[in-house]
Amino acid sequence: MRILAKDAVNHIGEEITLEGWIHNLRELPEFSFIVLRDRTGTVQGILEKPDFEVPQIGNEYVIRMKGNCVKSEIAKAGFEIKITGIEVLSKVVDELPTQINKKNPVEHLDRLLDYRYFSLRHPKLAAVFKVQSCISRGFREYLSSQEFTEIHTPKIVASGTEGGANLFKVDYFGRPAYLAQSPQFYKQMMVGVFERVFEVAPVFRAEPHNTSRHVNEYTSLDFEMGYIKDENDIMDMEEAVLQYVVGLVNETCQAELELLGAKVSIPTKIPRMRMTEVHEILEKKYKIKYPQGFDIDPEGERAICEYVQKEAGSEFVFIDGYPIEARPMYTMPDLEHPGDTRGFDLIYRGMEITTGGQRIHGFDMLVDNIRKFKCNPDDFTFYTDVFKYGMPPHGGLAIGLERITCQMLGLKNIREGTLFPRDLDRLTP
Amino acid sequence: MRILAKDAVNHIGEEITLEGWIHNLRELPEFSFIVLRDRTGTVQGILEKPDFEVPQIGNEYVIRMKGNCVKSEIAKAGFEIKITGIEVLSKVVDELPTQINKKNPVEHLDRLLDYRYFSLRHPKLAAVFKVQSCISRGFREYLSSQEFTEIHTPKIVASGTEGGANLFKVDYFGRPAYLAQSPQFYKQMMVGVFERVFEVAPVFRAEPHNTSRHVNEYTSLDFEMGYIKDENDIMDMEEAVLQYVVGLVNETCQAELELLGAKVSIPTKIPRMRMTEVHEILEKKYKIKYPQGFDIDPEGERAICEYVQKEAGSEFVFIDGYPIEARPMYTMPDLEHPGDTRGFDLIYRGMEITTGGQRIHGFDMLVDNIRKFKCNPDDFTFYTDVFKYGMPPHGGLAIGLERITCQMLGLKNIREGTLFPRDLDRLTP
Repeated sequence: MRILAKDAVNHIGEEITLEGWIHNLRELPEFSFIVLRDRTGTVQGILEKPDFEVPQIGNEYVIRMKGNCVKSEIAKAGFEIKITGIEVLSKVVDELPTQINKKNPVEHLDRLLDYRYFSLRHPKLAAVFKVQSCISRGFREYLSSQEFTEIHTPKIVASGTEGGANLFKVDYFGRPAYLAQSPQFYKQMMVGVFERVFEVAPVFRAEPHNTSRHVNEYTSLDFEMGYIKDENDIMDMEEAVLQYVVGLVNETCQAELELLGAKVSIPTKIPRMRMTEVHEILEKKYKIKYPQGFDIDPEGERAICEYVQKEAGSEFVFIDGYPIEARPMYTMPDLEHPGDTRGFDLIYRGMEITTGGQRIHGFDMLVDNIRKFKCNPDDFTFYTDVFKYGMPPHGGLAIGLERITCQMLGLKNIREGTLFPRDLDRLTP
Repeated sequence: MRILAKDAVNHIGEEITLEGWIHNLRELPEFSFIVLRDRTGTVQGILEKPDFEVPQIGNEYVIRMKGNCVKSEIAKAGFEIKITGIEVLSKVVDELPTQINKKNPVEHLDRLLDYRYFSLRHPKLAAVFKVQSCISRGFREYLSSQEFTEIHTPKIVASGTEGGANLFKVDYFGRPAYLAQSPQFYKQMMVGVFERVFEVAPVFRAEPHNTSRHVNEYTSLDFEMGYIKDENDIMDMEEAVLQYVVGLVNETCQAELELLGAKVSIPTKIPRMRMTEVHEILEKKYKIKYPQGFDIDPEGERAICEYVQKEAGSEFVFIDGYPIEARPMYTMPDLEHPGDTRGFDLIYRGMEITTGGQRIHGFDMLVDNIRKFKCNPDDFTFYTDVFKYGMPPHGGLAIGLERITCQMLGLKNIREGTLFPRDLDRLTP
């Protein structure tokens, strides 16, 4: 039976069998060290005067390694495997494309991405996606506990959700179709059925620019809920979701966080500010001035986070009351603050990771608002029709999975938090 | 505070507030009944000589309903709400497109799909997707408990996984790209990193035929695992996954199953047969004859399920040992049975719901096999390169989420189990 690396310590005094990759083979004149890696970590084996024929091996060979698990004062783990047999399960037939047994990946990001399928074997790179796996799991687990229904909405659509720009075009049996930029309309429709829905799925943005913040396909964590009072109910839910996620990450990814030198925490209450207030602070404290009605840019996001961190000790901040001009036409206007909407962003360590808000649920108001945006409601019947039959007050949000991963782990480029990034120049692997 | 329909019974003797849709408004000369529906069910309210002004209401209006929760010998639930106030949260402004408060949906499937966003409010249609939500949740929960890592692989790809046929073409910044037919190659790559991975995500098949078994976009439940002995390890894992899923569905979707008249069970051990044996039985018992090396068709799938049900009392059957001609070139040949592979299908109530198997993990064997398939290995370097650096023995499978939903619930057309189906004729809503 195969013993995993993490469990070997429980078998001291026994002969055990391990299976994994040779993480590091060090051949010395008198003996050799084999550090074996599996999904749970590494184990050191020592090969001394073997009484069996040692097959040809090298780094990244997949082997079955038999040996006696013995205490050792020299080995870092306090024990090692005195190897009694090696069987090669899979060979390496070419030069390894990157080094994965150095403390840090040494190659340039482009090369790491070119050989993603291999470079991810570096424990520090793999750790990123173990944490990411935990984030999406936490997102779903918490929402399931709150009676949300998971939905799977179509990615091939007849028209865009955000006005038609930046859509990838698909040839659908000779007809034009597009890749969904977001499940926005579908999740709203499903509020009319299930009240509370979520989806974890890819979204596609044909934005023709290469920045460290953008990729053209990413994973969106979406939820939408009905029977709310206003956007504060959405922020409350996100706060609870993120608290659960951070708890789960700290609980189940301790080794990964340690490896990456990352610390993750979240306050009981995330500060909520209004955009007008943010503009004032940025002008007064940071000399950054935006025209009224404008969203803040990355520089402003970093500055306001620095401010909130200093004043309130939080790495997260909600900015509510986005101006009408900066939000899509389905956003609920805030009648108490003319010119503002009930749309918000969540900024985390200087980067926007969520856009959300209350949506318009009344048919008449929606049609009026489309006109106010200088559009023709007749062009939007595929969307507005849904609102003819009783839609409850509702709202929701989307969290970029790769973005929250990067912010949590201190990664500088969104590509580092994307398993197989797609950008202007990159369509493989 | 809003009380949910399912909790109202705990508030007898109190004045409570409910929010939901008017499922059924019955106006009688002396009084009116309002059946209110929310995500948890329905509650009956009675409106008798109201001392408040009753607003205009009708079926599917969204209302806030205040009233005294009192015992009633006439009401089916044993209690009803004596309404003391009604506030309209959202109006209906057009004729309802389908009837949703009859015992069964009365319209043709096409109309139900045209108005999917509304027709799903019918409790029987909504129930299908609550069960579906539970299936994908169970799939992930079980695999997470077995140390699988969730991955998110790209859907925009440079080339197809299954030879290039039936791919949707995407315009990727002026370059040709395609929609992924499956995460096959990516999940194999990630076995080389995480050993055990899963993904729940859309896949796209440009198959130009309209049948009750096919849609062009569906949700694939994929897993792939390394360090296996052979394909039996994959079937063992699927058996355990499905046992967990069936348990979860029975535990959390009792109301939905009852509403749909569905019963779900799974044996401790799913029978495993070889394709050669299946061919023999079908010929002998059902006079259905296939040429050697051929897959069975839907008729054969139904017949073999009938046979296994009768002989072994199982609604599931694994068919192992698919012939080489019927499987992709990456399938592990079965050296003990020349001509056969270590590929299998799982048939459930007469329909294939899973294709899986052991894959080839050695570079040399893979290249040889590509040649045997009369292809040029140079055209497949994007795939074969991955196998140069030590890939463990591995295998995996894909379950069609919509298919397993339909089979579990006895739905005849795959579109009934698809939230927003995409087919030759349908690209909306």
